[in-house]
Amino acid sequence: MSETNSSSTDARRPRGILAPVLTPFHSDLSPDARRLARHCRWLLAHGCAALVPFGTTSEANSLSVEERESLLDAILEDGVPAGRLLPGTGACSLTDAVRLTTQAVRRGCAGALMLPPFYYKAVSEDGLFRFFAEAIERVGDARLQLYLYHFPQIAQVSFAPKLVERIFRAYPRTVVGMKDSSGDLGYTKTILGTLAGSGFDVFVGSERFLLAGMREGGAGCISATANVNAAAIDRLYRAWGSPEAERLQAEVNAVRGAVEKVPVIPALKAVVAHHAADPGWLPVRPPLVDLAPAQRDALLADLAALKLALPELRG
Amino acid sequence: MSETNSSSTDARRPRGILAPVLTPFHSDLSPDARRLARHCRWLLAHGCAALVPFGTTSEANSLSVEERESLLDAILEDGVPAGRLLPGTGACSLTDAVRLTTQAVRRGCAGALMLPPFYYKAVSEDGLFRFFAEAIERVGDARLQLYLYHFPQIAQVSFAPKLVERIFRAYPRTVVGMKDSSGDLGYTKTILGTLAGSGFDVFVGSERFLLAGMREGGAGCISATANVNAAAIDRLYRAWGSPEAERLQAEVNAVRGAVEKVPVIPALKAVVAHHAADPGWLPVRPPLVDLAPAQRDALLADLAALKLALPELRG
Repeated sequence: MSETNSSSTDARRPRGILAPVLTPFHSDLSPDARRLARHCRWLLAHGCAALVPFGTTSEANSLSVEERESLLDAILEDGVPAGRLLPGTGACSLTDAVRLTTQAVRRGCAGALMLPPFYYKAVSEDGLFRFFAEAIERVGDARLQLYLYHFPQIAQVSFAPKLVERIFRAYPRTVVGMKDSSGDLGYTKTILGTLAGSGFDVFVGSERFLLAGMREGGAGCISATANVNAAAIDRLYRAWGSPEAERLQAEVNAVRGAVEKVPVIPALKAVVAHHAADPGWLPVRPPLVDLAPAQRDALLADLAALKLALPELRG
Repeated sequence: MSETNSSSTDARRPRGILAPVLTPFHSDLSPDARRLARHCRWLLAHGCAALVPFGTTSEANSLSVEERESLLDAILEDGVPAGRLLPGTGACSLTDAVRLTTQAVRRGCAGALMLPPFYYKAVSEDGLFRFFAEAIERVGDARLQLYLYHFPQIAQVSFAPKLVERIFRAYPRTVVGMKDSSGDLGYTKTILGTLAGSGFDVFVGSERFLLAGMREGGAGCISATANVNAAAIDRLYRAWGSPEAERLQAEVNAVRGAVEKVPVIPALKAVVAHHAADPGWLPVRPPLVDLAPAQRDALLADLAALKLALPELRG
């Protein structure tokens, strides 16, 4: 089975700023659904058009499939709207990817963001195509809106432009976009040049590339730093065609630069913990480790100097 | 908690040739427990001292945790002896690794072979140490015999010698050895030079390094090709100190060289399928792909020229 093309862009698709939502853990490292739901609501109220639970920043691959399923159900029950969620559903195992994607579709999620299977390296284009084709066929649901997750530095398995086009051409109503975390604007341009005209939405993986991406026809960004700076990134998104754009880009770059001086995931948890006055946000699962106190102090001082504001996070 | 050292080598620990057992799939790509159990029995009768279900060659990371659990239970029920199994129990998620390792220990397996968490790259030594320490503490069973699985080319996350020593020194009665698939004899020598005297068993990851490894104090090899050539590799293992060793090494290298001309996992499945007269062995899960017919024909011709024999595999 493959699908007939449909070149119209679906108005319900998210555009703008998406956060790969940090996953809070209890002190025993079990996932904390209550804090997660609260953070989701805060993000949606402060600049995020939609959310990606279970991205790289979410430590998704440090969670079991059951933990991911339970967390998604818990935040939906807690009132986070499914229509604004694009959960990460990728896995090395086809059966896991199908199970997680099926759950996302059945719960009414706006889409699903799928990593390639990332254990075997140097796999063939045919093998990766077959993985995605099997996954789509096995989910077997016309509601599925699939986004490909390209992050070659971490996954090590990447989406060559030819592969992206092949998957899109085979399933044009299902495969509707990608997150491009390559940091390679040449790659972004190649994908947008080939597919943006067909309604394929490309989100850059860092706000550093937001303005450049929007100028090439991008759809926004899905960025770790959106966990703490979505409002400012969203201002850039809305003003990308205006004379203010370069200044807004420089401002969000400065915050990103401060965060990137240290490991980003524990850094973002430290920032949320500080602004929420809630040390319960700090734990990360191994193999990640907490920031050293000196790293944390320097980070918070840098961000204070940049006047980073996280209104209403406390309480 | 950490453990007191015990430098005596346990006589019950496996040594010699271990196969990371191929996982057969039905045509719908579901795991085939019956064919797997039959292959395990055949391998134990034809040169393997023990077996590693759920290694890289087993497509373990293309299976869900439940599929791995069910397959292990099924082959044990089918009579494969737990005391000769070292299942692969590594996972990116601590909770998955603990669950799989706990099952292996409770079923009486001889040990467990654990990959590092392999999603995040460039993680710290502290983070990896914490992952293994947490896993060992959470399994919390004095019967656990843990082997570290070093495969930097595929996992991309590797065990620096300092990390191996740190994990071993913290849990010397639990962490009893490793599989070294680096193909880097300098690394193997470093580990053996530091730890072999403490009863730490190093299995090289390819029979190409078996003779060199044995000369440095190694314990044997855990090699993909043992799925089809264990008897010959075992002859080399038993004769490594004899004048015949170099000739036997050259013979097993020739078979390995033929297999390595094409992707190894589908190649080994094709060889088993051919000798068992059972095309049910052929399917691989994506992202792997079957050999092309011409590749398969060339491989079988090469192995026939080398007089590879797989007695009693048929039927």
